[in-house]
Parts: sequence; structure tokens; C-alpha cells
Amino acid sequence: MIVLFTDFGVEGPYTGQMTAVLLQSAPAVPVVSLFADLPPGQPKPAAYLLAAYARWFAAGTVFVCIVDPGVGSDRGALIVEADGRCYVGPDNGLFEIVLRRASRNRVWQIAWQPPALSASFHGRDLFAPVAARLARGETPDSLGRQTQAMPQPGWPDDLAEIVYIDRYGNAMTGLRGMALSPGARLSAGGRVLAHAETFSAVPQGAAFWYVNSNGLVEIAVNQGRADRELSLAVGAGIEIFS
Amino acid sequence: MIVLFTDFGVEGPYTGQMTAVLLQSAPAVPVVSLFADLPPGQPKPAAYLLAAYARWFAAGTVFVCIVDPGVGSDRGALIVEADGRCYVGPDNGLFEIVLRRASRNRVWQIAWQPPALSASFHGRDLFAPVAARLARGETPDSLGRQTQAMPQPGWPDDLAEIVYIDRYGNAMTGLRGMALSPGARLSAGGRVLAHAETFSAVPQGAAFWYVNSNGLVEIAVNQGRADRELSLAVGAGIEIFS
Amino acid sequence: MIVLFTDFGVEGPYTGQMTAVLLQSAPAVPVVSLFADLPPGQPKPAAYLLAAYARWFAAGTVFVCIVDPGVGSDRGALIVEADGRCYVGPDNGLFEIVLRRASRNRVWQIAWQPPALSASFHGRDLFAPVAARLARGETPDSLGRQTQAMPQPGWPDDLAEIVYIDRYGNAMTGLRGMALSPGARLSAGGRVLAHAETFSAVPQGAAFWYVNSNGLVEIAVNQGRADRELSLAVGAGIEIFS
Repeated sequence: MIVLFTDFGVEGPYTGQMTAVLLQSAPAVPVVSLFADLPPGQPKPAAYLLAAYARWFAAGTVFVCIVDPGVGSDRGALIVEADGRCYVGPDNGLFEIVLRRASRNRVWQIAWQPPALSASFHGRDLFAPVAARLARGETPDSLGRQTQAMPQPGWPDDLAEIVYIDRYGNAMTGLRGMALSPGARLSAGGRVLAHAETFSAVPQGAAFWYVNSNGLVEIAVNQGRADRELSLAVGAGIEIFS
Repeated sequence: MIVLFTDFGVEGPYTGQMTAVLLQSAPAVPVVSLFADLPPGQPKPAAYLLAAYARWFAAGTVFVCIVDPGVGSDRGALIVEADGRCYVGPDNGLFEIVLRRASRNRVWQIAWQPPALSASFHGRDLFAPVAARLARGETPDSLGRQTQAMPQPGWPDDLAEIVYIDRYGNAMTGLRGMALSPGARLSAGGRVLAHAETFSAVPQGAAFWYVNSNGLVEIAVNQGRADRELSLAVGAGIEIFS
Repeated sequence: MIVLFTDFGVEGPYTGQMTAVLLQSAPAVPVVSLFADLPPGQPKPAAYLLAAYARWFAAGTVFVCIVDPGVGSDRGALIVEADGRCYVGPDNGLFEIVLRRASRNRVWQIAWQPPALSASFHGRDLFAPVAARLARGETPDSLGRQTQAMPQPGWPDDLAEIVYIDRYGNAMTGLRGMALSPGARLSAGGRVLAHAETFSAVPQGAAFWYVNSNGLVEIAVNQGRADRELSLAVGAGIEIFS
């Protein structure tokens, strides 16, 4: 399976063009778009989401990860192998948390070159063809040379910030549930929030935090929108009182 | 074919995670997302849309239906068989209209249990795996025990309310076209509307009602947006003068 | 491969119903949605986008193209063959630029009739079944009779207007990059813009024009939104100073 993890938007032609390239190059491999609406141009929140969501896919999955504000600059282009999964994308921190948490990993600078490379859409011209080759069984060694990813030493292991807001207004953080005790309180948007197991455990309209289905701490309002009621946006900081 | 019918949003990771589970469990079965943007958390309008849209799919189709504000509570989890199609989802009224209109139907409480069940994403952990098993040929009897769905006696056979607003601003109602005579007039948003066969049968900018391609009464403005011009939203009531 | 090119919206049931029809009629053919959010009801900007994006697909691809404000009127229904690719859709100018740029082309009026044709959704009832038949190898001659598309003599070869705004706020025009010299300046939204090769070639916050990955002139702001900062919308005119 090839999984798309991008900030292209659910609109527009970009996901469709990527999918067409992948289906033409690796016709037997299903393509699934996991995220098309990552926070635009921000590799940092995306790095925490990728680490939380990728764990959930089988070994052998190839992720094409594109949050690439530096396209056209000289930032590198990577293949990452971590705990049996493969990742392809720009060298801008997107793989930092996956790499840090992996029990074993290797990284390659992509050396393969497409017949034509546009200045602004390396997803279609470089990363999708490389992902299709990996999905068809070509080795990373045949496509690049081993290297290290550019490190992001200032990024914490768990990020006390909002990294994504979903359709219901629930606000995901970059904190793993295992990093907090259930008795911990969070402060977000000027409110102090206690833990609950589920939405139905709190009264209608009450704000709370819980560990979501991918293991991340999420802030929600039962039958309401946490983003509006607590004025939360991607990048907003969270305080933890444990 | 497996059909997704949800309020997950076209954004975010939920449809992608569901699709990945389905493709891993039933690789030969195509997955199509019919609705990802049902009115969030509202099983009632979704029930009328499901009955109108499902008729249009072949026998053997498996629908995964998730509008589930009670996830994490003790609401039941159902398999429904109605007129040869299968449905999987929460027992909250979502299948009420499908069941009522079916010439024959059976209902099972799901007994199958996943290895791990998150508190907030039964779509991924319970309903998708059950749908994949049904699509692969397992029987409802092997996955659950026969029961009745929780009845919704207060819900009418045809719902005189807006149930969905599409991209063009057209407002679908829960009324079947066959429930109205072509001479009927509707009152919506303070305006009285006559019937027309098609958009091009009325002047540019005129509001009217018509029977849409799935048999539901829909309110529209030729080359305009009915939602804005008549101030319509999901849940708004319609009066019928026949 | 069958490619969807529509203004249906990424929301709602229309793309899902089309995909289901195509998968039922041509199960072995992958379906990719290229654009679902073309400017609603406007065949003219769509015609320039189609010509720019279709070039990029292999011969044999079948495009289902639906921007159809005249559905229900007596506008024609076409099959177009241009440079080895097939197109199906309404006769309202959508194929004008593809036809004009093709080294060879033929056009058929669709004669095939579906068992039932709704008044408002010819995409599902007429164009998708015809596309599936073409993808399975039926010939245009067996589905229609040769004709000419309704000409649009007033449409220029390159359109100096915004035709699409993407998720990042970048504004695509209907001008091919090859129609401008790199020294050309564009005036849009009251600002005069110079050319740059890539985003990273201009300072953060600077507006510029560049040739996008599909060969169209696009207006952008490095790490900003051109649509907001220059007040651009689909249909806004561009002036060229070369």
C-alpha cells in the first residue's frame, strides 16, 4: 500500500496527479490518501502526526510525505526506512519524530533523477516515482546513497501544541497520551481541562481532554466545537499541570 | 463494493484510515466514499439520505454508515440486511428509514469483537472490519445475533426538512418526490416555491423545487445559491401547500 | 485510466456516485479524480485548465468532464478524441481549447441512450456509462455520430484571467508560460509582478509570477496567500507588460 500524507488540500489537482503517477508506475499497489490537509507549509506539526499515524500501518507500507515549503531550494530529498516502513519526502524535519522513535532506521539521500523535474511539484515528479519504485520492490540503495536526515535538536519528544483541528472542531496535540497521567490537567485557550475516557463521560457542552484513537492527546467538547469554544488554532500552546 | 457513508469530513485522516483497514481486510473489494460530509453528529437527516441513495446501488453492496455522536456510550452496533444490501453502523436511528421502506429486512447486534477497540473510533476498529468480513462472504449470523433496531416512532416517513446542502447551494429535503404532486407549492425561508422539471425551465435567479436525481425534493435557484438566497440550513423546516 | 474533471465539489455524493457507476461498468479500470472543484458552472476557465492538465496523461486515458450549467436544456453531449486521449462531456465550450491545440481530433455527438436519464445528473446517467464503454474498448463510432463541437470563436488561445485558486492561495491563469517572455511583467490586483523561477528565489512575503508545474502562468506569494494579498478571484483579469 502507498499512503499519501500531504498538505496539498482535498481540493485541486495535486492529489489526483500524484495518484495518477503512482497508479501508472505501480498499477498493482493501492493508493490511500491519509491526510491531504496537513497544516500548510509546516513540517513540525506534521512530523508529530506522522509518527502517531504511521505506527498503525503494516510493515512494507510506503508513505509519500509532502509538506515542502522549501521546494525549489536546495533542501535534500530523502528515503527513510524505520521499523519496516518506508517514507519518501523532503529533508525538512518531517521525519524527525519517526526517526527518533524507531528502534532501527536508515536514511538515504535520493540520487535517482526523473527525466524532467518541475521547480514546484517534486511530489509528482520525484517523490511519487521513487515511492512507486520502492513499492514495486526496488531497494533504497539502488535509488540513493545513505546519509543522515538534517537533525531538529530543538524539537521536543512530545509537542505541547495543537497540531491539527478536525472536522468536528476537536484539537489534536503533539503529546502522546502515554506522556500524561490520567490525573493531569491541561490549560488551553484560557481554560483548565480534566481528562475523560470518552465524549459521553462528560455533560453536553463540557470541554475535556482524552487520548484519541491514535494515541495523541486531543481536546474536545462533547457535542460542541473545541476550536471555537476555546479559540484554538494549529500552533497554540498547551500547559500541563500534572 | 463497499460504500462509505459518514460524517467524518472530506478532510482529515478518518476516511483514509477506514479505507486502509478495508483494503487490508478485503483487498479485492473496491471502496467508494459516497458521503463523507453528512451533517455532523445528526443521524436523523442521514437516515433519509441513506434510504434515498442506497436504492441506487446493486444487491450485495455493503454500506459502512457512521454518524455516531454516542460513540463510547452503550448504544448498540448493528448489521442490517435490507432488500439484498448490507449495512453496518451504530444503532441510533441511522437505519430507521431503510428498514421501514424495505420489503424484507433482518437486523443483527454485532457480537464479533476486535482485538483492540478504541473508545472514539469504532468506524475503524469495529464497523470497517465487520464490513470487510461481510464483503468477503462471512454471514451476519457468524458475526452477530438477530435483534431489532431501536425504533424511532416519532420520525415521519417523509421528512419536511432540509437534510443536506450541496456545493452549489442546492438544499435537499427528506421528502420523496413521489410524496408531492407536481402542482404542490413549498414554503421555505419565507418564500413560496413552485415546481419545475429542470434548472433551465426557470429564469436565471429564480427559486423553485424539483425532484433530484435520487428522487428527493430539492430546492434550488437557477444559476444561484438557494442556501444563501433563501437562508436555508440543515434542519430548516419546509411547509407544503398541495 | 478514467479521470474525473468536474465542478461537483469534493463534498457530497456526486463524485462517489460517478465512481460507483464507473467501477461497476469497467471494473478493471482505475478511476482518479483530478479536479472535483473546478469553478462551479463555468466551462470557460475549465477549458483552459483541461488543455493544460490533460497533456500530462498518457494516450488512451478517458476524461469525464462535467461543468454543465445547461443540464436539462438541449445542449449537446460529446465524445472528443484529441491526440490519442478521449473526452466525454457537454457541448458547452469545455473542449474548445483541447480541440484547438490538438494536432488531430474528431468529435461525436453521443447517440447512445441510457435506460433512464435523470434531468439533472447526466454525469452519472449518460457521461459515466459512455466513458466506461470507451475505457472497455467500445469505439466512439458505436456510441455516436461524427459532428463538430459548438465553436467558441471569442475565446482567446491564452486567457489572461485567473482560472483557479488553489489551497495555498496561488492563482492559476489561463496563460501558458510559453506565451510570455521571462522578462514580462503582469499586473494583477493593482500590483505589478515580475517573474521568478521558484518560491525560494524571492523574499518571504513577496508576490511574483512563475510557470507552474503544468505550464500555466501562476501568481503566488512566497509563504503567503496571493488570493488574499492581491484580492484575486476566479475571473479577475491580468494585464501583461512585455
